[in-house]
Amino acid sequence: MKNAPHNQESARKLTLLGSTGSIGKNCLDVVRQHRDLFSVRYLSAHQNADLLIKQAMEFRPHGVIITDPQFFENTRKELSGICRVYAGMEEMLAILEDPETDLVVNALVGGAGVMPTFTALRYGRDVALANKESLVVAGRLIMDLVKQKECLLLPIDSEHSAIWQCLQGEDRETVKRIILTASGGPFRDWPKEKLTEVTPEQALAHPNWNMGQKISIDSATLMNKGLEVIEAYWLYNLPVDQIDIVIHPQSIIHSLVEFRDGSLKAQLGHPDMRIPIQYALTFPGRLDLNIKNFSLEDIGELNFEKPEVNKFPCLKIAIEAIREGGTRTAVLNAANETAVRKFLNGEIKFTDIARLIDKTLQAHNPLQEYRLDEILEIHDWAQQYSHKISL
Amino acid sequence: MKNAPHNQESARKLTLLGSTGSIGKNCLDVVRQHRDLFSVRYLSAHQNADLLIKQAMEFRPHGVIITDPQFFENTRKELSGICRVYAGMEEMLAILEDPETDLVVNALVGGAGVMPTFTALRYGRDVALANKESLVVAGRLIMDLVKQKECLLLPIDSEHSAIWQCLQGEDRETVKRIILTASGGPFRDWPKEKLTEVTPEQALAHPNWNMGQKISIDSATLMNKGLEVIEAYWLYNLPVDQIDIVIHPQSIIHSLVEFRDGSLKAQLGHPDMRIPIQYALTFPGRLDLNIKNFSLEDIGELNFEKPEVNKFPCLKIAIEAIREGGTRTAVLNAANETAVRKFLNGEIKFTDIARLIDKTLQAHNPLQEYRLDEILEIHDWAQQYSHKISL
Repeated sequence: MKNAPHNQESARKLTLLGSTGSIGKNCLDVVRQHRDLFSVRYLSAHQNADLLIKQAMEFRPHGVIITDPQFFENTRKELSGICRVYAGMEEMLAILEDPETDLVVNALVGGAGVMPTFTALRYGRDVALANKESLVVAGRLIMDLVKQKECLLLPIDSEHSAIWQCLQGEDRETVKRIILTASGGPFRDWPKEKLTEVTPEQALAHPNWNMGQKISIDSATLMNKGLEVIEAYWLYNLPVDQIDIVIHPQSIIHSLVEFRDGSLKAQLGHPDMRIPIQYALTFPGRLDLNIKNFSLEDIGELNFEKPEVNKFPCLKIAIEAIREGGTRTAVLNAANETAVRKFLNGEIKFTDIARLIDKTLQAHNPLQEYRLDEILEIHDWAQQYSHKISL
Repeated sequence: MKNAPHNQESARKLTLLGSTGSIGKNCLDVVRQHRDLFSVRYLSAHQNADLLIKQAMEFRPHGVIITDPQFFENTRKELSGICRVYAGMEEMLAILEDPETDLVVNALVGGAGVMPTFTALRYGRDVALANKESLVVAGRLIMDLVKQKECLLLPIDSEHSAIWQCLQGEDRETVKRIILTASGGPFRDWPKEKLTEVTPEQALAHPNWNMGQKISIDSATLMNKGLEVIEAYWLYNLPVDQIDIVIHPQSIIHSLVEFRDGSLKAQLGHPDMRIPIQYALTFPGRLDLNIKNFSLEDIGELNFEKPEVNKFPCLKIAIEAIREGGTRTAVLNAANETAVRKFLNGEIKFTDIARLIDKTLQAHNPLQEYRLDEILEIHDWAQQYSHKISL
């Protein structure tokens, strides 16, 4: 750990990639509650220039990046005299070299987050990672960099933050397995046959978490849990057989670790992303956070059941992909992104998402070892291939 | 911590007080599974000479103590050539000076465990404490000694072990509150009026834990949870208002800690005392233990509700005693021991337990500060007083 979050004279400087999304907004709410401890160095958004401008006005960063260049001119005009304005992905990657940044928070959506994670680590920056695709696409390369650069890679996903918290003060060698909890999504109780009729609106209505579109659909197909298994595989260096999943509809227990003595630790709390976000920002310490009171007696009941792999084939496909390893999980991710987009556009059915991913994986000639350029090329190929194929 | 449990050349030597009780037998089962890591220095029992002899044959301690002298001669004869045999409480206290002992496990029942805890600490021994009465009777004196002698006081109670485990790797300053779980005992669902009819047999049948008689009755009255609040008050140095109780009938979550950021950690597992016992023996590490597989999906459901303080007045009396502090909790403990014995003997009704304790507390002139001799004298007084009074 190079940047101790406490015992420092000045506020900790954050560069927040994807500040206008769900995680980005929650992250800024955490900063808002601790203005003396955190300051914003850079903010980035893709197309939501209006909100980015508003955020820059409030948090007064050193600079902002709008990655879609068509919004550059207007953003620059609006923020004239406030902060620097950059445009495009290349400039985003360039600002990650900034030595004034203490922590990069990567809250980008999808495969677009891979290069920023890789670049930030290459520059020796600690990274708080909400972009699970970074590890799904290029897990081995990223974990190699974390080790080589002695950086911290702090999970922001609620499940991985839960495990991270449960592992504090424990010897990793004593871990028997980790158990990721899954809400089961909005179709947990639906009969399998009915899933062909699912509409995007139904799939976007997550029972517990208020999240972005992509992750909401991934939660509905259980692909999100599959991606989390892959993420956990890399973050915690555990074989797939030591990563289990349990359906827990209330999303109160965020995940668990079982130790070799039969003792388990769980992290729990309201499903509020500000908790894992703030933990990544304050690790290994904790700060106050204005969360509503937690009461197990008010919650009353926590339920658990086995995931129905046959009803949700995406989960099985993801687990097989990481079990076989290599470039397969990058293809899985790219095909899933295409499939989710097509489903949201009304081009394919909900049940076609798994079929489209499966077909793309079948067409892929996997490599076990890969370089960054190779994996990005394979990701591009899979995006294009999955876009074109007919089911 | 003076005695590191790992990285040592020879086995860790345990002195186990109360080896023939429920905790004692479980502790020896843990030792049995790790004969290369643990050895037994002394064993003690009160009257169960047969089992003590059998245990000595198996574990070959340096010596055994039988505290009831009428069993001395026979024990000495049976163990001739096997190990030394001592009799009585004074000899038990004397062997605690033994510098060869690495850890004293105090599994004695009731107020009889106070002096051994105190004495072991005074000799600078680390203590694993199953005898919660030590802290209930003389919490301040014991915690002062722990600090002064820089000893470890490791909790064996499942709830306090749970909290101890959840606090590893965390800054104590970030704790908002702890939450002790309680099964609610066998009469959780009984109407209040029916409690006058409770028989000892009914009260001894605990739904989840297989325990000794005293603690089973304490669980049925919820006094056990009251004693645990007092124990937690001392062990974790928290005001009473930061110690909450939630009824959790399945006894799977053994307790929880809530932190200032709204995040909670829980420790869970099968209700098997070997887990907290072994944790105290291996702390801060963990070893394998032959516990049956744990599966949240098989358990299916965890429930939580508010404790019914009006139905179980012992809980309220205990919390008031520690809130007001001083010598009151010693009186509470002594009166409770008398009341439980009288109930088991058929002398008083189940609902008289609280009444007898309350009456004894009313007759007590409390001191806020006390020395060891004073608190033991008060404990004796309360035993005698509670024995004599009529309800």
